[in-house]
Amino acid sequence: MELQLDADGLTAFLARDFPQVADQLRIESVAPMALRLRMLIDERHLRPGGTVSGPAMFGLADVGVYLAILAMVGPVALAVTTSCSVDFMRKPAAGADLVAEVRLLKLGRVLAVGDALIHSDGVAAPVARASLTYSIPPAMG
Amino acid sequence: MELQLDADGLTAFLARDFPQVADQLRIESVAPMALRLRMLIDERHLRPGGTVSGPAMFGLADVGVYLAILAMVGPVALAVTTSCSVDFMRKPAAGADLVAEVRLLKLGRVLAVGDALIHSDGVAAPVARASLTYSIPPAMG
Amino acid sequence: MELQLDADGLTAFLARDFPQVADQLRIESVAPMALRLRMLIDERHLRPGGTVSGPAMFGLADVGVYLAILAMVGPVALAVTTSCSVDFMRKPAAGADLVAEVRLLKLGRVLAVGDALIHSDGVAAPVARASLTYSIPPAMG
Amino acid sequence: MELQLDADGLTAFLARDFPQVADQLRIESVAPMALRLRMLIDERHLRPGGTVSGPAMFGLADVGVYLAILAMVGPVALAVTTSCSVDFMRKPAAGADLVAEVRLLKLGRVLAVGDALIHSDGVAAPVARASLTYSIPPAMG
Repeated sequence: MELQLDADGLTAFLARDFPQVADQLRIESVAPMALRLRMLIDERHLRPGGTVSGPAMFGLADVGVYLAILAMVGPVALAVTTSCSVDFMRKPAAGADLVAEVRLLKLGRVLAVGDALIHSDGVAAPVARASLTYSIPPAMG
Repeated sequence: MELQLDADGLTAFLARDFPQVADQLRIESVAPMALRLRMLIDERHLRPGGTVSGPAMFGLADVGVYLAILAMVGPVALAVTTSCSVDFMRKPAAGADLVAEVRLLKLGRVLAVGDALIHSDGVAAPVARASLTYSIPPAMG
Repeated sequence: MELQLDADGLTAFLARDFPQVADQLRIESVAPMALRLRMLIDERHLRPGGTVSGPAMFGLADVGVYLAILAMVGPVALAVTTSCSVDFMRKPAAGADLVAEVRLLKLGRVLAVGDALIHSDGVAAPVARASLTYSIPPAMG
Repeated sequence: MELQLDADGLTAFLARDFPQVADQLRIESVAPMALRLRMLIDERHLRPGGTVSGPAMFGLADVGVYLAILAMVGPVALAVTTSCSVDFMRKPAAGADLVAEVRLLKLGRVLAVGDALIHSDGVAAPVARASLTYSIPPAMG
């Protein structure tokens, strides 16, 4: 399968459809069924003590898999997150961006499944892993 | 087991330790191993189209189970979220608060487990369910 | 919504379509969007040490939610399990049956979601909780 | 970290402590924080229609991550599965073994986390993914 949207196309999509998070995210690379997404950490993402909040990490994984789907099918319709599971494994490094390595594991007619491994930038041990399932509207199939 | 913190005690804890979300949340009731938490929905929680975002629902469930743990053990130490799973089942009603019914299913020496059923206020069918696991630091046991 | 299959109808379905597990399971009650299922524990379900195995508990929850779906839609087609999450919370009591209290939380056109709380018979504290998602084939809608 | 048990050591452990499943499993390779495990499919694992059952796939992932932990810490004590999430993505190929590629993502003092990607032997697209969390007894730390 070929890519329908490259990193520039996905960045333009983010800026237009998700203006509230677009400035926090950088698409570092995109390939068939895979994508690398960086979250620029600032005050909005932090909990007391300086660690990145759980919802921020969940949001990074959610947007990452969503963009990996759009890269394959194009910006034609809205996939909807139907379920997720996340394991929070380590405390993110203070002051470091988070980087999500996303794999698309299934891109079916009605369901898509992907996972993400999230690292603090420059640290090998992952801080979280997440898997997400999306329901794909009929028009998108 | 007796409650160590009632709704007023938990509200004071939220205001002091989670000032960034305290004004969005109302503890409606608390009982041994159970809690009802309301999220006052505003612009910050919305996605394009007017639905509440996935990270906002995740955050509601996460804080809800966390508060149910604190109600039982007191505000002595920080439990850490180690894993969660969420099913997003229906689109939240536009303009309605979300209400989470939280059950604490296990409160062990090292792990606590709870779940939450989330409704749009005034609508019977749930919009999401979530289950969460917390690691409890030694001092808290 | 009305029940399409009662406990007798579900039991007959189990005996015909799942002969390999039908003799281990008893449908104790069925109601709209809810079902109570007992697993008669024997040697096949045990791990060294006498506890019920994880796969056996997973199977109980999986069949329980599946039967709750069939009770609502009738034995017309095969729903397929697409995802599950399980929390194993306590060691099951030795020599006791397991009882699953199943709730159907969503029964949509393409997806169904349910959860199960599993107890050792006669013990209040749950041993496990599980949530499961099923994809419903078009003919079933 | 060095391996405490190699494939032969893990195979001997399986035969002694899990005689009921040892003959169905082959450890194909083991490395620090990684393991490849094959399930020899036979009648016991099949559902009507010839597909491998969900509980069998869950069991494969569960034993796979468990063995990856033992490879690192040695056969000193029993880690207990505390939670899992599984996505069932495709129908396994009829008559083919299943192969699980296991990664250990965290091996902490009290919790270990791993995931598994499961393929039908000889087919690239995965049939399932699973993530599992284990509680590690104090003596094991």
